[in-house]
Amino acid sequence: MKRTELDELGEFGLIKHLTRNFGKMNKSTLKGVGDDAAVIQYGSGNATVISTDMLVENVHFDLIYTPLKHLGYKAIMVNLSDIYAMNAYPRQVLVSMAISNKYSVEALDEIYEGMRMACVQQGVDLVGGDSTSSLKGMTLSITAIGEQATDKIVYRSGAKAGDLICVSGDLGAAYVGLQLLEREKSVFLANPNMQPEFEGQNYLVGRILKPEARKDMVEFFESVKLLPTSMIDISDGLSSEVLHICNQSKCGAIIEEMHVPVSELTYQKALDFNTDPMVCAMHGGEDYELLFTIDPKDAEKIKYNLEISIIGEIVPEKDGVRLQTKAGRMHDLIAQGWRHY
Amino acid sequence: MKRTELDELGEFGLIKHLTRNFGKMNKSTLKGVGDDAAVIQYGSGNATVISTDMLVENVHFDLIYTPLKHLGYKAIMVNLSDIYAMNAYPRQVLVSMAISNKYSVEALDEIYEGMRMACVQQGVDLVGGDSTSSLKGMTLSITAIGEQATDKIVYRSGAKAGDLICVSGDLGAAYVGLQLLEREKSVFLANPNMQPEFEGQNYLVGRILKPEARKDMVEFFESVKLLPTSMIDISDGLSSEVLHICNQSKCGAIIEEMHVPVSELTYQKALDFNTDPMVCAMHGGEDYELLFTIDPKDAEKIKYNLEISIIGEIVPEKDGVRLQTKAGRMHDLIAQGWRHY
Repeated sequence: MKRTELDELGEFGLIKHLTRNFGKMNKSTLKGVGDDAAVIQYGSGNATVISTDMLVENVHFDLIYTPLKHLGYKAIMVNLSDIYAMNAYPRQVLVSMAISNKYSVEALDEIYEGMRMACVQQGVDLVGGDSTSSLKGMTLSITAIGEQATDKIVYRSGAKAGDLICVSGDLGAAYVGLQLLEREKSVFLANPNMQPEFEGQNYLVGRILKPEARKDMVEFFESVKLLPTSMIDISDGLSSEVLHICNQSKCGAIIEEMHVPVSELTYQKALDFNTDPMVCAMHGGEDYELLFTIDPKDAEKIKYNLEISIIGEIVPEKDGVRLQTKAGRMHDLIAQGWRHY
Repeated sequence: MKRTELDELGEFGLIKHLTRNFGKMNKSTLKGVGDDAAVIQYGSGNATVISTDMLVENVHFDLIYTPLKHLGYKAIMVNLSDIYAMNAYPRQVLVSMAISNKYSVEALDEIYEGMRMACVQQGVDLVGGDSTSSLKGMTLSITAIGEQATDKIVYRSGAKAGDLICVSGDLGAAYVGLQLLEREKSVFLANPNMQPEFEGQNYLVGRILKPEARKDMVEFFESVKLLPTSMIDISDGLSSEVLHICNQSKCGAIIEEMHVPVSELTYQKALDFNTDPMVCAMHGGEDYELLFTIDPKDAEKIKYNLEISIIGEIVPEKDGVRLQTKAGRMHDLIAQGWRHY
């Protein structure tokens, strides 16, 4: 029997391959595999928007530098981010957990306290889940459920040539924060008496350990009556997400490097690490900002929102997906997001 | 710091403990933690019923005797069973998977083919999920989503004294089937050239490897306009589930052992294994039949359904939860369901 390794397909290729034979039998299924969340509508009223993520110890998180409370907080936040990426409001979560008996009840209390803080902050109810043992380590599976009117749900597929490409907040900080944690981990492993040096780095470390889902952006869109033409959250890195939008909207894009928002702290610390700050911003991932496109006639609506940067423009598909560097050169945009296989 | 071991609380105690501080902020949350599924309603129309389960290799399944296709089929079925246990109809599933690179794409194809067969048979759409790597083994997390009118959803909490306690199908076969598989596993491990001896045991092995969720029962209830007063599916064993119903309905029960349905095959094979067939039926679990209670005035409606057995009666809480043995003795019912911690 032929043996194809998982990494030959990659995560997105694998999901596409595995789900290729599944049809759609229910008219209540408005959107299946292939966006930030699925969309379901039973009867009239708001549609249900639903997304799920799995987090595996030592693949997605490292308990050497992740406080348990932060792990719980982040696990919830990154799932809510997927619901906001549909321009929807999360209302409920389900939490499943496989844990080995190396964990005590008190350790789980810490995780759940972090989850509770995220739920309270975002106005979301924990409504169910599963809890079981594992032979080794911890695996979390979180499902977020939200709602939105069907005509306000924003997919990855609606961008069209001429649309402005926008991003919330700033990028690359989570990646640089992770490098800081990794450096302190090696220092700690070499000498367990060393204390971590994070002074002045709160912002960077906070971006990787305690990301905030951009509920405020969805509320802002509502307040100015702006409906983005497409949207996705930035979990794998800006490049990867731009390519998803272009792929599903059947269009191209030009990203202008000089407009990609990078904080001063990120910039300086990246240079300290001999890393190109723009590489961190383009490929770092885990920022959980929103990438979205808007019709140019809506540009006026975002003009005074300092949280939003216009970083490029959607172009016809034949023009490709490209990056214009600060030096004025044009490169094809390639995805170098985090690979888990 | 105090250290409390997980098994001091048990699975249900642990979930209760961990979720004790979570409040309810959204009026769309009709039912949270504590039933077979959560119930959510955005606006009017049918409510959304949602449930999730995690399956861990070598805790919930053993790939030595579980064909991958069956694993996929069963993973879907046991989740749909939770939706039927709410008297609702499943319409969608989300499938998440953490897998080590010992698995090939072809192996995953087998799992997904089994999932597809279950989805097609039950009229359910796969609408999303997540796929990631694990350092070791496989963990599956399945979320099932369904719908029902809010006044037709059946909870664990509605049983009242005088109600008849009913069960679909027969019990204990899955447990005996598992013993068969375990025996053949030890034979195989001792001598890999031995072929398994399952002749005439298709029913028993099928019950553990390929359970069928009881969609037909929910359809039957609809056809005869019967609304059970409470319902739960039998995953941990009859005793455990009766206790859940009694606990949440604040009532007692008398189960009559002589009316607990056990197939002839189960009975004989249990005796071959020197096991009490009734212990298999009461505590075996994994049967995925439905346990439900009905108002005695509805008894007429189930009279001609040979798939339903009346096995006892709900009594006042002060009378306890008891089993009347075939010999006429009364015992307190205790839960000995499968423990995963």
